[in-house]
Amino acid sequence: MSVVVAGIGETQMGKYPHRGLHEMIQQAGFAAIKESRVDPDRISAAYIGNFNGQQLASQGHFGPLAMESLGLSHVPALRVEGACASGGLALLQGVEAIRSGRHSAVLVGGVEKMTHQNTATVTHALTSAMDIEFEANTGLTFPGSFALIAHRYFHEYRNIQSEMAQVAVNAHDNALLNPNAQMHKKIDVDKVLSSPRIADPLGLYDCSLVTDGAAFMVLVSEELAAEIGSSNGHRRVKITGSGHGGDALSLHGKKSMTTFSSSLSAAQQAYSQADLKPEHIDLAEVHDCFTITQIINTEDLGFFKKGQGADAVAEGVTARDGAMPINTSGGLKAKGHPIGATGISQAVEIVTQIRGEAGDRQVRKADKGLTHNLGGTAGTCVINIFEGA
Amino acid sequence: MSVVVAGIGETQMGKYPHRGLHEMIQQAGFAAIKESRVDPDRISAAYIGNFNGQQLASQGHFGPLAMESLGLSHVPALRVEGACASGGLALLQGVEAIRSGRHSAVLVGGVEKMTHQNTATVTHALTSAMDIEFEANTGLTFPGSFALIAHRYFHEYRNIQSEMAQVAVNAHDNALLNPNAQMHKKIDVDKVLSSPRIADPLGLYDCSLVTDGAAFMVLVSEELAAEIGSSNGHRRVKITGSGHGGDALSLHGKKSMTTFSSSLSAAQQAYSQADLKPEHIDLAEVHDCFTITQIINTEDLGFFKKGQGADAVAEGVTARDGAMPINTSGGLKAKGHPIGATGISQAVEIVTQIRGEAGDRQVRKADKGLTHNLGGTAGTCVINIFEGA
Repeated sequence: MSVVVAGIGETQMGKYPHRGLHEMIQQAGFAAIKESRVDPDRISAAYIGNFNGQQLASQGHFGPLAMESLGLSHVPALRVEGACASGGLALLQGVEAIRSGRHSAVLVGGVEKMTHQNTATVTHALTSAMDIEFEANTGLTFPGSFALIAHRYFHEYRNIQSEMAQVAVNAHDNALLNPNAQMHKKIDVDKVLSSPRIADPLGLYDCSLVTDGAAFMVLVSEELAAEIGSSNGHRRVKITGSGHGGDALSLHGKKSMTTFSSSLSAAQQAYSQADLKPEHIDLAEVHDCFTITQIINTEDLGFFKKGQGADAVAEGVTARDGAMPINTSGGLKAKGHPIGATGISQAVEIVTQIRGEAGDRQVRKADKGLTHNLGGTAGTCVINIFEGA
Repeated sequence: MSVVVAGIGETQMGKYPHRGLHEMIQQAGFAAIKESRVDPDRISAAYIGNFNGQQLASQGHFGPLAMESLGLSHVPALRVEGACASGGLALLQGVEAIRSGRHSAVLVGGVEKMTHQNTATVTHALTSAMDIEFEANTGLTFPGSFALIAHRYFHEYRNIQSEMAQVAVNAHDNALLNPNAQMHKKIDVDKVLSSPRIADPLGLYDCSLVTDGAAFMVLVSEELAAEIGSSNGHRRVKITGSGHGGDALSLHGKKSMTTFSSSLSAAQQAYSQADLKPEHIDLAEVHDCFTITQIINTEDLGFFKKGQGADAVAEGVTARDGAMPINTSGGLKAKGHPIGATGISQAVEIVTQIRGEAGDRQVRKADKGLTHNLGGTAGTCVINIFEGA
């Protein structure tokens, strides 16, 4: 059974240290509910993605928090967490709740409040997504982890620093056309390559952003979608395939550092459920916590052969006007990475593109889109495939 | 469709500041898997309850953490959080995964590491389960919240401090017979009433414990249970009814402070699904974060009329040899409250009693048992009903 995306909503992503959690949840949540034309009384469950409200804002228990914010206190809700894939996991729980027939309308959302903290606090909080006992306590940080991954990729294939820089340039180009993006700043490859080193070979512009934001969606069964009809004036978008892959939390526990088995597993599930192959996908939002990550992910998704993801970037294939547009929203790199909201925010972009409502950044063909959301050093991966009716 | 509990495992609960998360997960998780006789390769999903690893141990992303600990890194897993009901929610996600037919064997578990932190840090971390913006920042703590609730109960009904003390005495009596309990200490009503005040009318012995521990379960479909057969030598226990209720996160957002609507809603769902009434239940593990909470919960569950829960305690009804034994394990009060594990640990006790394997604390009739797990000031409630075959 397919699941229909009835409504979407998100905040502008950015640095808003004075915005409260309630405010961001209300802005994104009410927008999604209003747009859906679903009677709020029909919503019978909710799944909220939040990565680290506890270390960053001393706040947990986001299920009832979000429901009280939205005037839906009676709705049973829970927080799901899988590091940077928390939003994708919330979406997936909602999809499964509809698909199983248990619910006909659910709310999924994500929120993160980050920029009121200093960089040291945020960097420490982010390490809760890796293994504290074996990794973080040795001094490893996430830029450090993905720098190791990049070096290994260079060793196994070739040095792709200039193509990684082009990933950042594409992201910034796309974000310039996205009013909800955090970063509205044109950059070029030289700027990326000459930017301060964070963890060699990753420079400042190879890293995604620290972001405040929220994103929500109302998901409904096909029966309820039929009842609502096309009264909301948007092209109907269905979620036709989903996958959740797991892998070791630690870097040392993985079979490979340059192929993420959680991505392979989630992709296999999602393609199989949707009965589609990688070449059928028109566009994708792909987890780009670092520029190297996006290139590895596009290979793992089967868009490009292993070791050839960088060539595709160099040839313009992944640009907005290319054959396989990646991260038309600006991605985590330039739209922003409000961690718990990221997976839902990726889906908001794909739905917007499939509806043909992406304005200046609309791609030519957008019938089938995919979201790829990674947690930690790929311990978690969630993939969803969206199709326009 | 019913869900079969194939295996259970838990650590001893207590103060083990030098035990790591991996160690506790392995002790409880391997025990559950081994006892289940389920081939680990059949386990296709896992749900891990953890309340606040991030503030208490700088650790999140418990899905892949637990799977790597258990040698199951390929299994997709996620953390679910709903404050003190995190364990119950993990159990519920597992139940729904089996019931929907998506999986035939799943692992559910919970873990919390707390006692290495001082009381101030733990108290602050606990407030992440209430509304930070509206409640915690005013100085409210959980003993304070439940003290307000107790005072309101006294106002609406009568002062029940001595019955609340008896709740603590019963819990300690039961824990004396539970080798996994944290507290092995006989107390009497006078000791509870004369104990230092934490937040009047709650004294030290009205409050549950700060605990390290983990608890795990393997859940399987009836088909897979039939395949395994009775080779594991335990009476078969099924989960026949489940419910998840929501309410406002904040105290000010609730309709009543002495009847928890999340409990009413979860109970209605669970009883209806199991086709049972409160009077059919033989014994229950009921969330006793404070002594007042247990009394309110037993009323909300329909075991006793509103305002009469304290009478039942005074009359010995809720004692281990009473007509409705409550918290034969010792409860959160004396077995311990390893927050993310608590909901699973409650279920471990009910399954152990229904199997007739509770040793010295075995109750006479244990065919139908119930677990009630509350999160925060009742923003979340999860109820499960277990029946022996």
